[in-house]
Amino acid sequence: MSESRDSHLHIGILIYPRMDQIDFTGPFEVFSRLPDATVHVIGKTKEPFRDMAGLTLTPDELLSEAPELDVLQIPGGPGQEALMDDQEVLTSIRRQVDAGRFLYSVCTGALICGAAGVLHGRRVTTHWAAHALLPYFGAIPVNARVVVDGKLISAAGVTAGIDGALTMAALLRGEQVAQQIQLAMEYAPDPPFHAGTPASAPPEVLAVVARSYRKLVEARTATAERIKAQHEAAVGHASGAR
Amino acid sequence: MSESRDSHLHIGILIYPRMDQIDFTGPFEVFSRLPDATVHVIGKTKEPFRDMAGLTLTPDELLSEAPELDVLQIPGGPGQEALMDDQEVLTSIRRQVDAGRFLYSVCTGALICGAAGVLHGRRVTTHWAAHALLPYFGAIPVNARVVVDGKLISAAGVTAGIDGALTMAALLRGEQVAQQIQLAMEYAPDPPFHAGTPASAPPEVLAVVARSYRKLVEARTATAERIKAQHEAAVGHASGAR
Repeated sequence: MSESRDSHLHIGILIYPRMDQIDFTGPFEVFSRLPDATVHVIGKTKEPFRDMAGLTLTPDELLSEAPELDVLQIPGGPGQEALMDDQEVLTSIRRQVDAGRFLYSVCTGALICGAAGVLHGRRVTTHWAAHALLPYFGAIPVNARVVVDGKLISAAGVTAGIDGALTMAALLRGEQVAQQIQLAMEYAPDPPFHAGTPASAPPEVLAVVARSYRKLVEARTATAERIKAQHEAAVGHASGAR
Repeated sequence: MSESRDSHLHIGILIYPRMDQIDFTGPFEVFSRLPDATVHVIGKTKEPFRDMAGLTLTPDELLSEAPELDVLQIPGGPGQEALMDDQEVLTSIRRQVDAGRFLYSVCTGALICGAAGVLHGRRVTTHWAAHALLPYFGAIPVNARVVVDGKLISAAGVTAGIDGALTMAALLRGEQVAQQIQLAMEYAPDPPFHAGTPASAPPEVLAVVARSYRKLVEARTATAERIKAQHEAAVGHASGAR
């Protein structure tokens, strides 16, 4: 039994404008059912905002005032781009990792974690359309739905956040508790089609969806290149200063 | 091709206090990706409220002002009890069915639909812990994750709403569109455990979860009995008046 299983858990999820809401609400559904745990819905402000599809979300707590968190979750979505240089967010992520606590990235939340510089040499997954960007941040891309690398857990795109949260629930409170949550959520998924990954989707379906992501992927690639250069310059500067 | 595929779709989801948020946010994720469609997030008031686990949700539109909806979705959760006698809600559900438009019930949203009197003789599913209540409303319980009975679609518990919404996406816009949405959401679920249904869960897991529902099931059963008596009295009254 790890120490955390015996004490009250604090799980924080950072939410932000133009995120993909289910990257948050999927894991929230799991985490909010954990015994002896508090889920902190955290924002940079407490103002209501809209997700990428227009859903109104409202944080309860400020990132600047968040308690020490056993788990910090970073969801994804197109709004992630606006956080890639956000020092408050990036510092919070680095602190979480430096303190040896769980960091849980869902979907393109991994890119924000990459910008924070905590993915170097770590095994990571993200949304399939962003997978090729992981090496810019020094990460080792893993083509899996959920990847556990020590206290860094990452989930693939969007709905993978539910599978990752159940994996985390087992890490935090044991398998029986995770199974209880799965049963309560009646999580016995049965998609009516088999098109959930680039490998399983019909080629014409993949073509349409990949095309719809082209502009966003271009923007994210440019950001990743820029941040890679920044990180390299910082390392060069640090070695030069020695 | 049905008429609705050629025209703009209006999909309304009723949200309410102490609902289970993912009954709403799961299908919202699917419906909000449909081409040429508007998702209306509808409440009895526009005030923010909390779901059963404390998540703040905010409706955009009043039920009393909602447009004609191609789909009306009714999610579930413990807050469903408070709507079982709500004439505004029950009338809206009846109007939807009378107009020959889609009604989509998720989880214990089926009980609200039952209270509206629209389940008589219809094939319906709901959360496993509420399945035994369906006959009180004259419904034919079907042990399936998603049930399509004409324009009445029902999904089983909680996360089944995602599978049902993808089924509906195909009904509304065709299979290819539904597959595109599935791929964008990377919905290739891979639960870490096999405990998502009473049949697959270990007996000790089922025992704990069933026990946790006992009080809620008792309350819902009492409500279902009361409403059944009301419906029977109304039918008796109607025949007596003839």
